[in-house]
Amino acid sequence: MRCALVSRTLDLRGYLGAEIGRFADRIEIVDHRSDGKDADVRLAVAWHPPDDAFERYPNLQAVCSIGAGVDNIIACPSLRPGIEVVRVVDPAQAQMMSGFVAWHVIGHQRRFATYLGQQRDRIWQRLSQRHAQDVPVAILGYGEIGQRVAADLSQLGFPVLVWSRTAKPAPPPIRGFHGPSGLAAMLDETEVLVNLLPLTQETEGILNRELFNRMRRGGYLVQVGRGEHLVDEDLLAALESGQLDGAALDVFATEPLAPAHPFWRHPKIVVTPHDASDVRIEAVAATLVAAADAIGAGQRPPYAIDRNRGY
Amino acid sequence: MRCALVSRTLDLRGYLGAEIGRFADRIEIVDHRSDGKDADVRLAVAWHPPDDAFERYPNLQAVCSIGAGVDNIIACPSLRPGIEVVRVVDPAQAQMMSGFVAWHVIGHQRRFATYLGQQRDRIWQRLSQRHAQDVPVAILGYGEIGQRVAADLSQLGFPVLVWSRTAKPAPPPIRGFHGPSGLAAMLDETEVLVNLLPLTQETEGILNRELFNRMRRGGYLVQVGRGEHLVDEDLLAALESGQLDGAALDVFATEPLAPAHPFWRHPKIVVTPHDASDVRIEAVAATLVAAADAIGAGQRPPYAIDRNRGY
Repeated sequence: MRCALVSRTLDLRGYLGAEIGRFADRIEIVDHRSDGKDADVRLAVAWHPPDDAFERYPNLQAVCSIGAGVDNIIACPSLRPGIEVVRVVDPAQAQMMSGFVAWHVIGHQRRFATYLGQQRDRIWQRLSQRHAQDVPVAILGYGEIGQRVAADLSQLGFPVLVWSRTAKPAPPPIRGFHGPSGLAAMLDETEVLVNLLPLTQETEGILNRELFNRMRRGGYLVQVGRGEHLVDEDLLAALESGQLDGAALDVFATEPLAPAHPFWRHPKIVVTPHDASDVRIEAVAATLVAAADAIGAGQRPPYAIDRNRGY
Repeated sequence: MRCALVSRTLDLRGYLGAEIGRFADRIEIVDHRSDGKDADVRLAVAWHPPDDAFERYPNLQAVCSIGAGVDNIIACPSLRPGIEVVRVVDPAQAQMMSGFVAWHVIGHQRRFATYLGQQRDRIWQRLSQRHAQDVPVAILGYGEIGQRVAADLSQLGFPVLVWSRTAKPAPPPIRGFHGPSGLAAMLDETEVLVNLLPLTQETEGILNRELFNRMRRGGYLVQVGRGEHLVDEDLLAALESGQLDGAALDVFATEPLAPAHPFWRHPKIVVTPHDASDVRIEAVAATLVAAADAIGAGQRPPYAIDRNRGY
């Protein structure tokens, strides 16, 4: 089966490396070209595809992402209805994300920024200690990654609340919420908010003034979803007012984050370069092979998303 | 039962606060005085007692610590053989310690110091990511606290090795080691070393050049035992040579750490002010009451240590 690599931001052949060669007997990889048509391509791997990219492939049946998010593929105007969009599910990615989130949550609970500041000034001053039980952490998004993050934070002793669009079972002591009213109820109890939502029309701008104001005063944001979830000015205002005490931001509406952006030098913000967790290349390759097999057998690829829902 | 409060460094009455008043019908609290004798005192709470303190109490049967460590009590020359020494066991303390350790272990794995440095310089640069599975963490000391730290780090995906003086069972995938040969074997596989040992004659100075040299190159030390476990110069040399890539130090041979000590300004060392985890006052009070009840009934107090062993 012929598979095209389609990206305007990434050298996908270099990125996938030797992994794609392992399946050369089953998948013929071709680089995307902008001219003409290729009727033999039935599968693609894409990341920020050019707007007209998929016009070249009249018989395209499925597009695989190289990550858990597919928003940049769905946003492509030439992605016709009916083409399946496949995300990558990788337990190793969920674990990386969980450790990343735990570092920030514990850092907030234990006031490590204050310790680091004290060390700079050689100040020996013990801080008042808060137990994990007294720091409720809410997670927006309860898919594969959210479930892992929730389980690990719960093991560490934090009360964990999780929110999803539709109801999903959560094992006690994790408490599940869903829908708009569930979101409001959860935020009333939230000190640390972890954003793991997919980016859709419904979730764009969800991290805004109104949401921050519902959280406990002195709260903390861990933003590991997509930059477009956050209204930047609202975060800065919430930090200014003390409604939030800090934020860890790994994703931004424009990446790389512009050197002049106020987030870089804000004393209450930790900036990381969209590095919280990647899927492994092996997981991308496995997803691609499974998609090729499914298409060959006339079936729907595993981990194909619901295009109406957007994730 | 009359109980004396004995410390040359701490106002124990203020420290214990209202908690001790709750048991006023069963325990009469008196402050230590240096002159004369008090034959009615059968119990004491002590923290860094004066050298001659216990001479005053000819009928003293047990001394309770206010923490998990008893080294400062055992070191007191006037502590006669046969007086029981009781430590405080508090699950909440174990959990606080576990979060503290996890923060440092994840911080090493994920190179957060590098991220923070990049942010200062507004550098957007992704770092190579290492999975938790590739970062073996060894824990020295496998008592109540070590068990909790091991369980939590294991949940977070780290391979966890534990060492104790004598063999103790460890639930897989945690791997147990014991004795001198077990220590050497464990260190050969260790990247991050967490010190939770009690301070005894056997463990003093255990964190030394020879130990660091057995660890994987580029390792990391989390020192939350006692300052006297560490040979300061050997740590500085190991950081200088690159054998260790960093260290988190919460305890020091002299506390507060002197302003001129090189640890404060070392770029590879995080200093915190002996604040990783305290037992709760409620747990101290509960330990004291249980000791009073046991002594009253002619029994050995719970959590009395083995004085020959020193913990």
